[in-house]
Amino acid sequence: MADTEYTVGDYLLDRLAELGVTEVFGVPGDFNLEFLDHVLAHDTVRWVGGANELNAGYTADGYGRLRGISALVTTFGVGELSAANAVAGSYAEHVPVVHIVGAPSKDAQGARRVVHHSLGDGDFEHFLRMAREITCAQANLIPATATREIDRVLLEVREHKRPGYLLLATDVARFPVDPPSAPLAHYGNGTSPRALALFTEAARRLIGTHQVTVLADLLVHRLNAVDALDGLLAADTVPYATLMWGKSLLDESSPSYLGIYAGAASAEPVRRAVEDAPVLVTAGVQFTDMVSGFFSQQIDPARTIDVGAVQSTVAGQVYAPIDIGAALKALTGILTDRGITSPAVPAAVVPAPTAAPPPDTALTQKVLWDKVSEALTPGNVVLADQGTSFYGMAGHRLPAGVTFIGQPLWGSIGYTLPAALGAALAHPERRIVLLIGDGAAQLTVQEIGVMAREGIAPVIIVVNNDGYTVERAIHGPQAYYNDIVGWRWQELPTALGVPDALAVRAHTVGELEAALTAAAQHRDRMAVIEVVLDRDDVPPLLAELARAAAAANAAD
Amino acid sequence: MADTEYTVGDYLLDRLAELGVTEVFGVPGDFNLEFLDHVLAHDTVRWVGGANELNAGYTADGYGRLRGISALVTTFGVGELSAANAVAGSYAEHVPVVHIVGAPSKDAQGARRVVHHSLGDGDFEHFLRMAREITCAQANLIPATATREIDRVLLEVREHKRPGYLLLATDVARFPVDPPSAPLAHYGNGTSPRALALFTEAARRLIGTHQVTVLADLLVHRLNAVDALDGLLAADTVPYATLMWGKSLLDESSPSYLGIYAGAASAEPVRRAVEDAPVLVTAGVQFTDMVSGFFSQQIDPARTIDVGAVQSTVAGQVYAPIDIGAALKALTGILTDRGITSPAVPAAVVPAPTAAPPPDTALTQKVLWDKVSEALTPGNVVLADQGTSFYGMAGHRLPAGVTFIGQPLWGSIGYTLPAALGAALAHPERRIVLLIGDGAAQLTVQEIGVMAREGIAPVIIVVNNDGYTVERAIHGPQAYYNDIVGWRWQELPTALGVPDALAVRAHTVGELEAALTAAAQHRDRMAVIEVVLDRDDVPPLLAELARAAAAANAAD
Repeated sequence: MADTEYTVGDYLLDRLAELGVTEVFGVPGDFNLEFLDHVLAHDTVRWVGGANELNAGYTADGYGRLRGISALVTTFGVGELSAANAVAGSYAEHVPVVHIVGAPSKDAQGARRVVHHSLGDGDFEHFLRMAREITCAQANLIPATATREIDRVLLEVREHKRPGYLLLATDVARFPVDPPSAPLAHYGNGTSPRALALFTEAARRLIGTHQVTVLADLLVHRLNAVDALDGLLAADTVPYATLMWGKSLLDESSPSYLGIYAGAASAEPVRRAVEDAPVLVTAGVQFTDMVSGFFSQQIDPARTIDVGAVQSTVAGQVYAPIDIGAALKALTGILTDRGITSPAVPAAVVPAPTAAPPPDTALTQKVLWDKVSEALTPGNVVLADQGTSFYGMAGHRLPAGVTFIGQPLWGSIGYTLPAALGAALAHPERRIVLLIGDGAAQLTVQEIGVMAREGIAPVIIVVNNDGYTVERAIHGPQAYYNDIVGWRWQELPTALGVPDALAVRAHTVGELEAALTAAAQHRDRMAVIEVVLDRDDVPPLLAELARAAAAANAAD
Repeated sequence: MADTEYTVGDYLLDRLAELGVTEVFGVPGDFNLEFLDHVLAHDTVRWVGGANELNAGYTADGYGRLRGISALVTTFGVGELSAANAVAGSYAEHVPVVHIVGAPSKDAQGARRVVHHSLGDGDFEHFLRMAREITCAQANLIPATATREIDRVLLEVREHKRPGYLLLATDVARFPVDPPSAPLAHYGNGTSPRALALFTEAARRLIGTHQVTVLADLLVHRLNAVDALDGLLAADTVPYATLMWGKSLLDESSPSYLGIYAGAASAEPVRRAVEDAPVLVTAGVQFTDMVSGFFSQQIDPARTIDVGAVQSTVAGQVYAPIDIGAALKALTGILTDRGITSPAVPAAVVPAPTAAPPPDTALTQKVLWDKVSEALTPGNVVLADQGTSFYGMAGHRLPAGVTFIGQPLWGSIGYTLPAALGAALAHPERRIVLLIGDGAAQLTVQEIGVMAREGIAPVIIVVNNDGYTVERAIHGPQAYYNDIVGWRWQELPTALGVPDALAVRAHTVGELEAALTAAAQHRDRMAVIEVVLDRDDVPPLLAELARAAAAANAAD
């Protein structure tokens, strides 16, 4: 077979490129090496190897959140299962990742051979069956239908914003096929004109002359409806809030931005503005335990218009099928048509800025997140790991143009470190700010070296509070199991292949300020700022949620 | 509920203790924290937290291989899936690991709540279904049947030497039950006296006055039949070999030890002795691709007695059910009864010891593994990662009393580093020697800090050959995807919390000898010896297998 022949592997890469992929993540293994030759040979797609597969999966997730699609290549069994947690996280958090698994040849599969990386029982679909639980579409590719099946899986991934799974045997990858003859198909418009008309009429009646308040969440982004929502917010004076999951979805520097709504754990003015709104539009909202103060939201359906992925609801009455974008545009039309300018949103009661603590003051959680917030500039991508970092930052207003990435449903600690690499490669012109605890960083620290190899220079704040503080807050504050091994974070970058990193340790406000300034002055150098905090110092929001989590676990 | 009440969690821990568990491995998460309180409170079981779940799973595997059982505790979703590769590896390699997963309360499960660490769809059995593919028994425990189900799963794990899965909701763990009233049951003897008599008669006829040769593999160990096999080897002069999977199963310092049989990849005298044996007894043998030179074994069934887990075969005729131990004892009886002393095994043709290369000679793969072998002492546990380390060491004869651990079927690189921690805790009086490549060590390096915390002082040889050499040997010797980020191995132990490690770099024979001597002199200090080798230097056995692997992947 000539090397220049066009293969199934090339077809897959061309489709990924068509969808916007320019980097493919993963770890090599002998069942995917030949496919990787085609990655290296591709015009626009390049290979970014990770230190291990879980990390590569997280990297792909971070990239997919910003690029709208990503690809992960692992090898059969050992590789794909190491990435299973990352892929499941992408499923839970609605991130489109195409997981491509290099597999033994169809010959070996057919003969049920006892080959390495298999369980030794001749069954080559154990891991495909596992993938069914955490991906929205799967295929064990065979030559005759490979291109059709690739298209099917990619289409499902793009539409559902969930991961898909392709099992690509060595001999299938090299099978000759024709290149795509047309762009990947689109699903048609899912909106029924009649349902939309009835929805619009009902919404118009409910809204009347009331001011509309919006509560939005992550799915607005995943369903590509951010522009439609921005249109709604511009059609009148519309106070709005998001859940923590949707943080940075909307401009947090606008006077109409209320803050983060988190049920009973909300700041009181935000809670009242949302729960007492005359008419509330909830857009792409899913209440999960950690973003709702453990299901403490009080939303009166009679005053609510809920806009979901494929259906919308007015005062409890369901209208379907209606795409989220169509529903938001209809609501925008209602506000525009009535020609009312609702009153300005009262300025949020921001506590008077406390006098800056003197530089030699020991750092606290509160001061840390205040200072980090102040240092952010438009364009930053902030990744906050699911511990004190996430809950400490959630309440701060971000400058416009900052993207915030967390994982409040899946909540896998360590996720953000490799995800920061993916985010940086997805949007290379933006500076990455990674906020992570010492316990969490220990899970996935290897990727620091890969960042340097890829020319990525993030600002990494490692919160050294001597263990799993988020767990301590929930249970076992003094328990041995919440301790971790103490690392020397200042020496770590050099050991992991980043000798030119700015690596500093900050105990005091002054040291932190100096470190943040130095990091800002050296955009081309990775900065690792170890911030030493008291072991049991916890952001107030986390303290409240931790109490609720402990109560939920204790419920009999 | 009184703190002193006896719970499902206590029952589980008492059963594990009964089976020989004194350490439980894992990572805390809010759904398992309360169960961990019971671990901390237990009289004989203690908690060993890992840096991440994959590593903890590998640690449990290493422990299980030596202790005969082990336990791994993770949290729902994020934790258990991170460990999936380790658990699947335990399945493939017949290691009994009890995987205990802390889960949301039965309340939350019943109400299908959208809680963290779930996929958000209210289905709490996605991961249980995934576990079905890689464990031999599973249970989603409920209060009414928890103790019975725990016993069922533990019994299956012990009998099948495969992992089992227990989903332990927070509220089930604390449910009050009675302690075990009797030891865990045993499966009965599986041997049919009539089948055994017929087998013995047929074996006696086939053996006649011939010398018997034995080829043994890993399952002899897993089925607790090593003593029975030793009895057979002592009943006459019996030449014997093992596959690589079963390396160190039998005494490799005996004159009757032939060496490693690997099909066409065997040393020629070993191949001939096994394949031309007048009568060959194969015991617990499973031919996998990497241990059989890609299925190149030539075993004549007409001259073979195969002893398996539950059935035995004489010249192709199957006798069942017969336990492996019973079959081996029957064969021992045949040799003893006939009263013949077969001729001594000709001394293996060992190449004349080449003059030791001068100390300033650059190290090569060959010299490295020769020197490491010479430095081993009885009692060592050698773990060799599935790259040049495994194949470089496989051919060397080990001193009696050395245990060799590799993973030739599952072949997950990075496995041995955390497994070394588990092995050390399983047999604390033995010194651990870990042989691992730089690429492999990057996957799981975090556990070095945990080793130090646990007071473990292994000798770690990191083969720095600048990337994935085992992959280069198969495909893409110059390809970018086989490169890795260069780390500073000498600085790594300090950064990871092991400031007192002996960390040295060896380029030459003299430097390696000095490092091995220093390591031997400091049994209480971790030694990290970075050995710098040429990128494309490959042990001969690996070169041969890599050619066969590339051919298998290329087969259309």
